[in-house]
Amino acid sequence: MPAQTETGDPLLLTPGPLTTSRSVKAAMLHDWGSRDEAFIRINAEVLARIAALAGASETHVTVPVQGSGTFAVEAMLTCFVPRDGKLLLLVNGAYGHRAAKICAYAGRAHQVLETPEDTPVDLARLDATLAGDRTITHVFVVQCETTSGILNPIAEVAAIARKHGRRLLIDAMSAFGALPLDARQIPFDAMAASSNKCLEGVPGMGFVFIRKAILEACAGNSQSLAMDLYDQQVYMEKTGQWRFTPPTHVVVALSEAIAQFEEEGGQPARLARYTLNYHTLIDGMARLGFMTFLDPAVQAPIIVTFHAPGDARYEFKAFYAAVKKHGFVIYPGKLTQVETFRVGCIGAIGPTEMEQAVQAVELALQDMGIGSGEPAI
Amino acid sequence: MPAQTETGDPLLLTPGPLTTSRSVKAAMLHDWGSRDEAFIRINAEVLARIAALAGASETHVTVPVQGSGTFAVEAMLTCFVPRDGKLLLLVNGAYGHRAAKICAYAGRAHQVLETPEDTPVDLARLDATLAGDRTITHVFVVQCETTSGILNPIAEVAAIARKHGRRLLIDAMSAFGALPLDARQIPFDAMAASSNKCLEGVPGMGFVFIRKAILEACAGNSQSLAMDLYDQQVYMEKTGQWRFTPPTHVVVALSEAIAQFEEEGGQPARLARYTLNYHTLIDGMARLGFMTFLDPAVQAPIIVTFHAPGDARYEFKAFYAAVKKHGFVIYPGKLTQVETFRVGCIGAIGPTEMEQAVQAVELALQDMGIGSGEPAI
Repeated sequence: MPAQTETGDPLLLTPGPLTTSRSVKAAMLHDWGSRDEAFIRINAEVLARIAALAGASETHVTVPVQGSGTFAVEAMLTCFVPRDGKLLLLVNGAYGHRAAKICAYAGRAHQVLETPEDTPVDLARLDATLAGDRTITHVFVVQCETTSGILNPIAEVAAIARKHGRRLLIDAMSAFGALPLDARQIPFDAMAASSNKCLEGVPGMGFVFIRKAILEACAGNSQSLAMDLYDQQVYMEKTGQWRFTPPTHVVVALSEAIAQFEEEGGQPARLARYTLNYHTLIDGMARLGFMTFLDPAVQAPIIVTFHAPGDARYEFKAFYAAVKKHGFVIYPGKLTQVETFRVGCIGAIGPTEMEQAVQAVELALQDMGIGSGEPAI
Repeated sequence: MPAQTETGDPLLLTPGPLTTSRSVKAAMLHDWGSRDEAFIRINAEVLARIAALAGASETHVTVPVQGSGTFAVEAMLTCFVPRDGKLLLLVNGAYGHRAAKICAYAGRAHQVLETPEDTPVDLARLDATLAGDRTITHVFVVQCETTSGILNPIAEVAAIARKHGRRLLIDAMSAFGALPLDARQIPFDAMAASSNKCLEGVPGMGFVFIRKAILEACAGNSQSLAMDLYDQQVYMEKTGQWRFTPPTHVVVALSEAIAQFEEEGGQPARLARYTLNYHTLIDGMARLGFMTFLDPAVQAPIIVTFHAPGDARYEFKAFYAAVKKHGFVIYPGKLTQVETFRVGCIGAIGPTEMEQAVQAVELALQDMGIGSGEPAI
């Protein structure tokens, strides 16, 4: 029996867009004037609650950015790194490479320290590189690289950056709300996250936390009016408003999503649910013969990369369609070297849905005449 | 009796966000995988129908852009005008000035030809300026300047730009879908518009029409990965997908909005309804003593600027609150010289709602003890 939401839609096991609750979507059944007091109040509350969640209420401002996570990351990089600055990027997946591409577009000097996609960023090389190059002003790291699902040691990265007196920028996109990241414990200067991952809102906006003490230093860095976080923050401070028409429905959906997040018990409860989802998934998939790509020691319970089955009848498109027929949307792999697929553990789903997802995969294999998920390697 | 929507919300007489229909909002009650075939199909259909509406199916590609209209305008300007190009901006309001600011941020050479806020752009000066400066590569004009609500003569601007062999970029944001603008009659090279104005979708995305023949010339112009229209178009051509997570709910709401638009009878029907809204509004407001800021000859039936009442008891904030209490959200003025307020004629509203809006204004004046809307001038 296909697992479906009450709307009859397949469940999304993708790392954003993901399955949101009925009440998050129902929050979008109203229109709001974006310069009206009622909306201004909701918006301010959303930003304040997000800041509290990051332990950043005292030290940082929270600046909203329209668009996908990439918009927030680009806004962060280009507003923070001055035109004569130099960014060191710790890369072990597509999102790290994307940050490098953003720097290339914007003409920001940058250097990439790369590790393989199954290996956390290299702390010793980071330390040595910062010691050896005084021109590096900023360090960038991705907390959870959605490419593989790997967790990077951001506390250690933050300590090394601080030791060398360099600014730290974190892409916390797929982790924010589920994995702990508290500004009082991890001294970041800026952090970008999204409405649409572990907070379980709908896609359409992100936000960047900016250390108050260095906000002024961001003035004049951006080459984009639309993405100038400094200009947005000055305006919102004064008026409570976004500079340009915000995605009002996305904002009120996020407000409802945060209320549910808090009701569930906040970050620890969300992490616990996702961890249960994750174990339900990998245990079930192991029974079907599937192997995970990552060592469990470095795996975040956000999104799991599985090796493709070795069976010659396997083909991703057909597998995807079969799993969807049984009620679930999965995600293609994004690794450069190995054939894989990905399954998200996040969204308004619990272990029951994850068990049904495993069943759907089992049925899909049967449909394709594949006996086991065992990879060729 | 306060006019309210079936949701109990006040009606928005603001130029975006505006009041959308119940079924447009209800389209957001589903989650979609952004790389799933079902969503790809909806997205492709939305873009194709928008292109048809602009008479641009044969000649232009339609590239979606996340964010407010300003994101689409910035993407258009910075992807089209090369780094060694020069843009001539025809300005008679805040959106023209904003385009100039975008150029300043991005380091694009530009020159402003300004007329007062109640005066259409100056065709003779445009002609003379283009004749006298061969370094000007592009011309920019706003079809309907929401600052005042004035309509600019874009057909004439297009003819002059073509005569001099310069590229024409149009900001059609607040007019698209209601005022005629057909690529087969008005030879534009690029045009930016939004989901959230006369198409009556929700805010969160725009799009840029790009003449196919000059798409290749846009490669490498952008300093922003997120807003590189060329890169997005190449990717969508190949995969049918947005490069980065799109605002899926906003896209499906737009799909529903376009279906309603076509059902209503397309652009001519929408213009007819807005024109009726406009006349209902200004006739009613005239009865209350209000005066419009613009000469009716240059007024678009999109948004109307009224002079503030001359009565000493008038104060915008109190007036706004009183009108809202009676069921309508109006918009502050944006003119630099004169005290005004604005009322939108667009959205999922008809003459009945406009009559109720006039009543709400009448009641608000009574609440404030103001006898007439007559301005001081």
